[in-house]
Amino acid sequence: MNLIVDVGNTFVKFAVFDNDRLTHKTSFELSEFKKQYKNLKKVFTELNNCIISSVGKLSKTQTDIIDKDLNVLQLNHSLKLPFQNLYKTPKTLGVDRIALVSASVNQFPNNNVLVIDAGTCITYDFVTDRNEYLGGAISPGIRLRYHALHNLTANLPLLEKDQPKTITGNSTESSIHSGVIIGVIKEIDGVIDQYNKNHQDLTVILTGGDAKFLSDQLKNSIFANSNFLLEGLNFILDFNSK
Amino acid sequence: MNLIVDVGNTFVKFAVFDNDRLTHKTSFELSEFKKQYKNLKKVFTELNNCIISSVGKLSKTQTDIIDKDLNVLQLNHSLKLPFQNLYKTPKTLGVDRIALVSASVNQFPNNNVLVIDAGTCITYDFVTDRNEYLGGAISPGIRLRYHALHNLTANLPLLEKDQPKTITGNSTESSIHSGVIIGVIKEIDGVIDQYNKNHQDLTVILTGGDAKFLSDQLKNSIFANSNFLLEGLNFILDFNSK
Repeated sequence: MNLIVDVGNTFVKFAVFDNDRLTHKTSFELSEFKKQYKNLKKVFTELNNCIISSVGKLSKTQTDIIDKDLNVLQLNHSLKLPFQNLYKTPKTLGVDRIALVSASVNQFPNNNVLVIDAGTCITYDFVTDRNEYLGGAISPGIRLRYHALHNLTANLPLLEKDQPKTITGNSTESSIHSGVIIGVIKEIDGVIDQYNKNHQDLTVILTGGDAKFLSDQLKNSIFANSNFLLEGLNFILDFNSK
Repeated sequence: MNLIVDVGNTFVKFAVFDNDRLTHKTSFELSEFKKQYKNLKKVFTELNNCIISSVGKLSKTQTDIIDKDLNVLQLNHSLKLPFQNLYKTPKTLGVDRIALVSASVNQFPNNNVLVIDAGTCITYDFVTDRNEYLGGAISPGIRLRYHALHNLTANLPLLEKDQPKTITGNSTESSIHSGVIIGVIKEIDGVIDQYNKNHQDLTVILTGGDAKFLSDQLKNSIFANSNFLLEGLNFILDFNSK
């Protein structure tokens, strides 16, 4: 059994895979790391391999807890990867994006694939039908846009994500919801349109914390899969354990 | 002669209008307010009316300097406005947006007009062909998006605005430029498309600090006018002075 540890900008996720099947998933704040790991170990006694993907927030004390019990792989650019990385600066390619591209070549080999991860940031990653990763884009995610409007201006309130009723907001609050949510939808649809124009038979995956919220609102057809990043990490772990 | 004082989130602007003609424009940081005003008064001795539009950063000491010399109007929602304000919460409508809508009904009366102000924030404001203001949207501007990616995530650098060469960035830097700049373009074009679908004969104005940078990149046709907000303030001043 594999344990996947995904430390993002906002939350930590644990996922357990039994072969290729995701059997358990939990999400929590970094401060709860030790407690959550101990609980997990009690329930899943057959864990043996583990991959840790971290944007840089996990301390050595925290990784040491797992190191005692399991074979731990730290995800970084020097691992054996299942795709050809044509990024100009492969050492700076984020671990999340490595995982997403790995899931893409595993599940859609020989397809032109655009992976859109709508989380803290919205990342766009493009893989050709020859399994070459070319790169993509990074823009602020929904929560970041709400925070930016509040933190970086004089007068705007901080709002929680909410679906706008119409594109024309008739109050500060509804104007912000339209600007953020409809803005993100128009951005994503516009980017998909442009890739569709340039590449035949494009497959589009939408994943990340806001995937479910956004998927029904896009005009383009996409595959929504909230577990795509976790599945990519599981694939890299197996790919490097064999 | 009219003096227009526009205090935004980032800079203060002074503009001098001789009747409807903009004859002088300058932009500076708030700390230079007193010095800049004294210099301006030396050059333009015939100023008599003034309108101040401020998002809330100007102190009484600063406005008092102008009050001594000129008839000063503070822009707020209780002034006589040249359009019907159907905003649900008119008291919370930002002064910038009041000015943009005023310019719109002055310069494009009886048109359906979408005004897009690409500055610190990107504001969208829609006025019907019956001069009714319905509202719009507020999303983070280009600079805010670069700052949000840096300030609110663990690992991303703070970049200055730069034109991406392609939609598929092959480094962290070029990915961020694509995400921010192409993201904003797709958002704006998508919003224009949706208003075009819903309203015949739509006129679109693009203004604000990033208008020039963005205007050539949009697929929709727009009127780019960097002085639209200042022209709106000048119109409100005349409209209330008569």
